[in-house]
Amino acid sequence: VTLGRIAIIGAGQVGTMLAMALRQAPPSAGITEVALWDRYPGRAPSKPAREAADRVLERIDDALSFDSVVVAIPVREIVRFLEEKGADVRAGALLIDTGSAKRVVVEAMARFVPPSVHAIGGHPVAGTERPGPDGAEPRLLRGAPFVLTPVRDDPQAVLGGRAISEAIGARPVEMDAAIHDRILARTSHLPHLMAAALSQVVAEIGDRHTPQLLGTGWQSAVRLASSDATMVAEFLEANAGEVLAAIGELENALGGLRSALREGPERLAEVLAGARVATETVRASR
Amino acid sequence: VTLGRIAIIGAGQVGTMLAMALRQAPPSAGITEVALWDRYPGRAPSKPAREAADRVLERIDDALSFDSVVVAIPVREIVRFLEEKGADVRAGALLIDTGSAKRVVVEAMARFVPPSVHAIGGHPVAGTERPGPDGAEPRLLRGAPFVLTPVRDDPQAVLGGRAISEAIGARPVEMDAAIHDRILARTSHLPHLMAAALSQVVAEIGDRHTPQLLGTGWQSAVRLASSDATMVAEFLEANAGEVLAAIGELENALGGLRSALREGPERLAEVLAGARVATETVRASR
Repeated sequence: VTLGRIAIIGAGQVGTMLAMALRQAPPSAGITEVALWDRYPGRAPSKPAREAADRVLERIDDALSFDSVVVAIPVREIVRFLEEKGADVRAGALLIDTGSAKRVVVEAMARFVPPSVHAIGGHPVAGTERPGPDGAEPRLLRGAPFVLTPVRDDPQAVLGGRAISEAIGARPVEMDAAIHDRILARTSHLPHLMAAALSQVVAEIGDRHTPQLLGTGWQSAVRLASSDATMVAEFLEANAGEVLAAIGELENALGGLRSALREGPERLAEVLAGARVATETVRASR
Repeated sequence: VTLGRIAIIGAGQVGTMLAMALRQAPPSAGITEVALWDRYPGRAPSKPAREAADRVLERIDDALSFDSVVVAIPVREIVRFLEEKGADVRAGALLIDTGSAKRVVVEAMARFVPPSVHAIGGHPVAGTERPGPDGAEPRLLRGAPFVLTPVRDDPQAVLGGRAISEAIGARPVEMDAAIHDRILARTSHLPHLMAAALSQVVAEIGDRHTPQLLGTGWQSAVRLASSDATMVAEFLEANAGEVLAAIGELENALGGLRSALREGPERLAEVLAGARVATETVRASR
């Protein structure tokens, strides 16, 4: 599998980051061009996005004839793109997205993209909290998980997805879209909501000393609250069932910690030590 | 105010970090010696702790005759130290602690330390999630807030606290202990519980793919869960009233986000954008 001419649809943080990383890919990846199309009609792509690509496409339809098409826009827009343009992607092309919710995307690919196109769901699990192309840091892709969620029995699509992932130095991980959504609801989507909730709690303290007391703990706990609100709202909504379940699980866990706190520091330390071990275990088995 | 001979009680992360920073203080701080005593009877202080100090003290009573005494042990142990040894600190000395809950400490200082000792509550808001002396990173103190919570009308104590803070390059912030506890419950203590709760939720996914999907978002959200469980349990318990209130506020905020999610992505994006602005505002006013 060679990637040939690649068109990236969407010049936000993810599209820009991928364009930068793909242009630095080794020759073995067989990339001959990286073109970008930006979703905002009438607005030129940002400077970092323009510099990231070999070429900027004028119309979204220009992307449909490329060897590889990477759709890097918010989840609802991905689904809309598949519905409106999925049938027009050229036969034999690789079609992959980067959305943070995969079941809705894979379903739309199965429905709107003909089997002659090698379609597969994709999700590079890396990024910064700085929205837009200025937040693009291609070095974060090195060693990061790149989830591939198959649409139909299509080995070429899987090979294409792996080729994209390997070209940017990420670690391809193949799995069912529903499993991706179940896990990501808890490892990523819930943390976005937690950061937003904590932001609200801290904003409501209303004491003039608050800003002076923000340390490194607060910093990392609210990091995700700076993400692009529209993008986050769209993947939370596209994964609403799992996200609502995850909120319930978090509330249970908080309730358990509250009980432990009421029982006294020995019991609380036990529960906290258990959480620490859980984190070390999952981290170590990566 | 000159600090003279300083004894640090406790060679964990905070005590070791302070010893390292104090030994690099400018000559104007007037520090002539930095000695460490470790809380574990019969156990030698760790290598980083030994290297951080000019001298290791054999008995805790050796610390009581120093010009400045810094108590850097978990909150309950600070209170016990004040009860058992507070009356024996030499007259005219500066006595300061580093605990993350201040009301219980200041009350114990008022009760057990004679007015001839310049006692003040202290809290350097900086540290890493790696427990123990190996987690000591003195560079984190530069520019960090160093809260000072007065015990009684004692300008010498405040000057002493400011001198310690300035010697290590931190930013002294004076306030009432109750206000400190109210703010820290939300900016630091609650985030510790959130990280622990998220660890539990992720541990219970129980899918073999989970460890492969942990990205930078998860990383920062669970960072605090790796902290020393006993230390965390003790400051949570010492600030239980405010922490329980903060948990309730977080639950309310999560409930609001759940409702917004059910209303649809436009409404959710609005709420998330509000949280983002709240975070940027509080960050900008530091």
